[in-house]
Amino acid sequence: MNKDEKLLEGLLQRNNNNIVLLVMDGVGDIPNKELGNKTPLEYGKTPNLDELAKESVLGRHIPILPGITPGSGPGHLGLFGYDPVEFEIGRGILEAAGMDMEIKDGDIAVRCNFASANEDGVISDRRAGRISSEKCGEICSLLSKNIKYIDGVEIIIRPGMQHRFVVVFRGENLYDELTDSDPLMEGEKPLEVKALTDRAEFTAKLVNKFYEEARKVIKDLKPANSILMRGFAARPRLSPMSNRFKLDPVCIAHYPMYKGLSRLVGMNILDAGNRPEDAFNIYRENCTKYDFFFIHIKYTDSYGEDGNSLEKVRVIEEVDKALPLLLEKKPSVLCITGDHSTPAPMKAHSWHPVPVLINSEFCGFDDGIRFTENECNKGGLGMFQSKYLINYLLANAMKLSKFGA
Amino acid sequence: MNKDEKLLEGLLQRNNNNIVLLVMDGVGDIPNKELGNKTPLEYGKTPNLDELAKESVLGRHIPILPGITPGSGPGHLGLFGYDPVEFEIGRGILEAAGMDMEIKDGDIAVRCNFASANEDGVISDRRAGRISSEKCGEICSLLSKNIKYIDGVEIIIRPGMQHRFVVVFRGENLYDELTDSDPLMEGEKPLEVKALTDRAEFTAKLVNKFYEEARKVIKDLKPANSILMRGFAARPRLSPMSNRFKLDPVCIAHYPMYKGLSRLVGMNILDAGNRPEDAFNIYRENCTKYDFFFIHIKYTDSYGEDGNSLEKVRVIEEVDKALPLLLEKKPSVLCITGDHSTPAPMKAHSWHPVPVLINSEFCGFDDGIRFTENECNKGGLGMFQSKYLINYLLANAMKLSKFGA
Repeated sequence: MNKDEKLLEGLLQRNNNNIVLLVMDGVGDIPNKELGNKTPLEYGKTPNLDELAKESVLGRHIPILPGITPGSGPGHLGLFGYDPVEFEIGRGILEAAGMDMEIKDGDIAVRCNFASANEDGVISDRRAGRISSEKCGEICSLLSKNIKYIDGVEIIIRPGMQHRFVVVFRGENLYDELTDSDPLMEGEKPLEVKALTDRAEFTAKLVNKFYEEARKVIKDLKPANSILMRGFAARPRLSPMSNRFKLDPVCIAHYPMYKGLSRLVGMNILDAGNRPEDAFNIYRENCTKYDFFFIHIKYTDSYGEDGNSLEKVRVIEEVDKALPLLLEKKPSVLCITGDHSTPAPMKAHSWHPVPVLINSEFCGFDDGIRFTENECNKGGLGMFQSKYLINYLLANAMKLSKFGA
Repeated sequence: MNKDEKLLEGLLQRNNNNIVLLVMDGVGDIPNKELGNKTPLEYGKTPNLDELAKESVLGRHIPILPGITPGSGPGHLGLFGYDPVEFEIGRGILEAAGMDMEIKDGDIAVRCNFASANEDGVISDRRAGRISSEKCGEICSLLSKNIKYIDGVEIIIRPGMQHRFVVVFRGENLYDELTDSDPLMEGEKPLEVKALTDRAEFTAKLVNKFYEEARKVIKDLKPANSILMRGFAARPRLSPMSNRFKLDPVCIAHYPMYKGLSRLVGMNILDAGNRPEDAFNIYRENCTKYDFFFIHIKYTDSYGEDGNSLEKVRVIEEVDKALPLLLEKKPSVLCITGDHSTPAPMKAHSWHPVPVLINSEFCGFDDGIRFTENECNKGGLGMFQSKYLINYLLANAMKLSKFGA
C-alpha cells in the first residue's frame, strides 16, 4: 500500500450516499473544422448537461501523466482510483476478464487468433477468413477436449468473436514476461515465444508446447488451422473496491472489455444494453442496491476512432436526452467524464486532459456553464491526475473524514 | 530529508526581503443561497482586496491531496512548507504547544478533562460541570504538588480553559501508540489505556498509574474528582524554519493552537489581539525585526463552522478595511490565503481548494480581478499542493537561486 492509499484508508467511512460515475468513453476532443472549429461537446445541443454544468464543479483530469495517451485499461483504472502505472493490465487479462472468465492470482492469459497456414506453417491469413463465432466455438471445444494440461499446467480455452479466442494458463511458476508469437504480417511463420526474464523460461516453453499441440489438433481443418498468440499477461493484484474504498460497486456496461475491467476491481456486473437510455434504465432498477455505479457509454469513443465527429455529437446528444432518467433518481454524487480523449480528427486515443463534471449538494460551482473542454478549463477542480478523481467522489459523498486535528 | 526539500535547501539564499503570510482561517467557501448564490469572498465589499488582487497573481491550493479535508494542524503545516502527511501532529502536542508549554523531543502530551465520578469511578459528567478556569488552575497545582515523577518519568501538568488541562510526560522510552481513557460518554468508568504497539507498553502502564495517583489526590473534591485522557501524542521531528528555509519567522496570532503550531516549526510568537487591525498593528511595530510574518485571523473559520455566512462576510470585510495598515509597510511579499476551506453551508472544514493571492514586485498577474474562489480559478498560479506555497513565497522574496546552470 502506498502513502496516498494509506492516508485514504484511515479516513474512509461508510454511509448511505451513492455515487454515479458516468463515463462517456473517449469524450474529450479538440476543435474540428467539420464542426465549425468546435469540439463535439461544444457543437452538440445538450440542454440537460448545460443546466447540470451550471450547478456543478468542473475540471479536467490527466489519465496517466501530462502528454501520455492511455489505453482503455489504464484509463479506466485511473477513474476507479487505482494508479494505472502501478497496476498495469495486460491485454490478455483484459480480454479474458471481458469474456466472463474467472481469473485467479498467478494465471497468465493471452489473446489468440485462429489463422490460416500452409503446410510449412507459414501464415496466409492472420484471421482465418474471419470465421464465424460459432465455428470459433467448435474449434475451441475441440482444442479443449484434446489439451487439458501441459506440464502440470491447466489450459483453459474460451472462444471470442469470429477468429478470436483466449487461453488462460493456470498453474505454479507462471510469468508473463514473454514475446508474442503473432508476426503481425502474413507470409511469416508464427514466432517462437521467448522469455524476457529468467523466471519466465518455463512459461515460454509451456506456451510454445501449447502452440505445437494445438497445431497437431487443428492442422487439417480449413481455414482455421493455426493459432497466433499476442499479449501475455498475469492478473494484476488489485484490492477490490469494497476493501480499498469501502464501496459496494456495480458496473453497467455493454462491451465485454469494460465489464472485464470492472470485474478485476471487484465490481458486480449488469448488462447495459446498447443505448444510453438502456443503461440509465438499468441504473434506475438497481439504484438502491449498490452505492457506486459505473455506467459506461462506448460509442463516443468508437466514433472518435472512426473520425466521425457528427456521429460522436449524436451520441453525446443521446446521452443528454436520456440524462433526466438518471437525474430523477437524485444520486448523491454524479460525475460525468471520459476515460481519455479520442479526438475525431486524430482517429485515436490522445493525451488531451479529459473534461470532468461533479455534482453534489456541497460540490461548489464555478464560472463554467457547459460541460465542454473550454468551460472545464475554468473549473473549480483545476487539472488533476485521474487517480485522484475517486477522492473527490468519496469526499462529495461524505465518505471521507477529516485528516488530522 | 526528501527530494523536494533537498532541492530547495541547495537554492536558499538570505536577503533583507520580508514575507507576510496572512491566513484567514477557513476562508474558502462554496456558493451560498443566503448570499444570493455567492461565496462570502464574492459577497463581501472588499475594495482594498479587490485593488490588490488586480496587481497580484492568484490561484488555489490543495492542503493535502484532492478531496482530502484537513484539520487545522495539517492545514497550517502545509502553509509553513512542511508536508502534512509526513509530519503528523497529534492533538495532545497541539494543545500543549498552544499553552506555551515547552515540548521536547521524546515528550508525550495528552489532552485531559476534569470530570465528575461517583464512588466507583463511574463518570457522571465528562466536563465536571465546566468548572471555572481558576478552579482548574487550583486543582492542577494540587496535582503538580503531589505528582512530580512516576517510574522516573517527569509529570508536567498545565491548566487550560474551564475543565481542560494538558499533561506532558517527559522521560526515556515513551511512545504515543496508546488508546484514550475517555469513554466519550457518561455512565462509564474511564477506560484503561492500552498500548497499540509493544514498545508503548511501558507508557501505557505509566499513564494508567498517573490516572490512579491523580484519582487518589482529587477523589474527595467536588465536582472535579476524576480525569479523562484523550489524544496521546509525541512531538513530531520538525526542523525549525530558520534551518529549513533560512528564515527568521514570527507568528502573530490570538488563538493558542496557532501559536502552538508556529512554535513547533520554530517561530517566535507575538500576541495578536482579537481583531484584524490589532494583528496588523503588531505587525507594524515589528516589521523590521523578522523576515517571515505569519498573521492568523481566526474568525473566518469560526463563523464558517457555525454556518453563519453573514458574520463570515463581516470578518472578511474587517480584514479588508484594516488592510491598508499592513500595505503601508510595503512587505516585499504579501500572501493572503486560508489553511483550508470552511464552507458555511457545511458547517465544517472541507476539501475545496483554497483561494490564494501573492503580491510582490515580480509576482506577475492574471485575469483575476478579485480575491474570490472563481477569480482564483483563473489565476496564474493554477492549482497546487499547499506544501509548495513556501516555494512561491521564497521565490517572490528573491530568496531562491537558480537550479542548475
